[in-house]
Amino acid sequence: MPEPRGYHPFFEASNIDSLESERCLYLQFVFKAMRSFIIVGHKATTAPNFSLEDIPGTSGRLDILCRAVTAAFVLSHGIRKDVCVYLVLLGGEIPKTIQLRGETLRHLNPDERTTAALLKKALAVPATAEWAMSTSGIFVRTGGLAEVLADLKDAKLIYLREDGADIRSLDIADLDVSSLSGEMAFILGDHTGMTPDEESLIEQAGAKVVSLGPTSLHADHCVVLINWLLDTNVFMPE
Amino acid sequence: MPEPRGYHPFFEASNIDSLESERCLYLQFVFKAMRSFIIVGHKATTAPNFSLEDIPGTSGRLDILCRAVTAAFVLSHGIRKDVCVYLVLLGGEIPKTIQLRGETLRHLNPDERTTAALLKKALAVPATAEWAMSTSGIFVRTGGLAEVLADLKDAKLIYLREDGADIRSLDIADLDVSSLSGEMAFILGDHTGMTPDEESLIEQAGAKVVSLGPTSLHADHCVVLINWLLDTNVFMPE
Repeated sequence: MPEPRGYHPFFEASNIDSLESERCLYLQFVFKAMRSFIIVGHKATTAPNFSLEDIPGTSGRLDILCRAVTAAFVLSHGIRKDVCVYLVLLGGEIPKTIQLRGETLRHLNPDERTTAALLKKALAVPATAEWAMSTSGIFVRTGGLAEVLADLKDAKLIYLREDGADIRSLDIADLDVSSLSGEMAFILGDHTGMTPDEESLIEQAGAKVVSLGPTSLHADHCVVLINWLLDTNVFMPE
Repeated sequence: MPEPRGYHPFFEASNIDSLESERCLYLQFVFKAMRSFIIVGHKATTAPNFSLEDIPGTSGRLDILCRAVTAAFVLSHGIRKDVCVYLVLLGGEIPKTIQLRGETLRHLNPDERTTAALLKKALAVPATAEWAMSTSGIFVRTGGLAEVLADLKDAKLIYLREDGADIRSLDIADLDVSSLSGEMAFILGDHTGMTPDEESLIEQAGAKVVSLGPTSLHADHCVVLINWLLDTNVFMPE
């Protein structure tokens, strides 16, 4: 079979750990880097009093964020340990952020309702400006996008927007993760898009603006695609 | 910016209709071809008496199929018209299949519960060997995988299995859709994998066995990826 266009020779290397060349060690570093996803819910509730029987109708579309969470973490047989998700909830009196960390995350199932129940618990925790733990691997605090971007100041920020550059044009040189924390953070909006103020914040933080293509997709589908692009080593050094 | 590896020049052609060369008309034909997804739910209930408050626990994991349905159809601002989904439900006394057709599909929202409610309605329709309509674009009949494969005998069948060939090695010549119905049908299992009998059926139907990579993914995430690979024209002729 001829080598297909867009083929990356490490696609089939399911156990990169077993490869020993310097190049592979480099790849191993890059592709095992932490992946963060920041999803902004402009109407998403900051209170736990929504109904699990009607999540879209009672929570300011927290269902969108629930699906993004499962897209970020859930594999056929486990949870991605190298993923961190920040849900920025702007539908209350003051913004709150929920953080989910794969390395210690527990009780996450692939269905939407279970995820919503975990977020409901987190929203019942009294929130201050410091992270407070809800269930294992889930934390909550007050504050919004600016605070998350400040936390991730050493990460390479990538903002998904429909008019951005083809995501497949990103390469290691663009990302320059080797000289930073090794963390990549992808910023996604919900169904309402970012406000001009948020656009400014993201631009000032130095995010690259990229697109997954001409078809406008839901946030959770974007997260699935980003995970796959990273899993299959699309962003390879020359 | 240098042309990245894996870059396809039609990626940015959001309106392929406006392109006029013979090559583009060919591409237009290929990429507007019907996409079918067949998802086999080995334990999935064929009765409508499951609980919308606990879909995973009461329906034989119909939640997996619900998420595959939304992954197949839902865009940010609409429904994919060129998609058809077959859900093969094997968790009852006799198998049933639910068909969802994008061209006439109504009432589908992105959340899992709404989809489950639509499937519940379809399962309440008395099923015979002929398709009976439930709500707009949703049909049900008795019969399982063999009957679906018989219906799709003119489609190019592609079976997703972890040990298959790299999906990106598929090209137009492999698919040969131009000489058939123009329809591509992707076969996916649920969390339990296919039985030996199902494997035989799929092999006899002439399906190509392909993989999305070394990381084992949920069915709905596979559907997201296939849609994107087709949207972004990865399977281009030389």
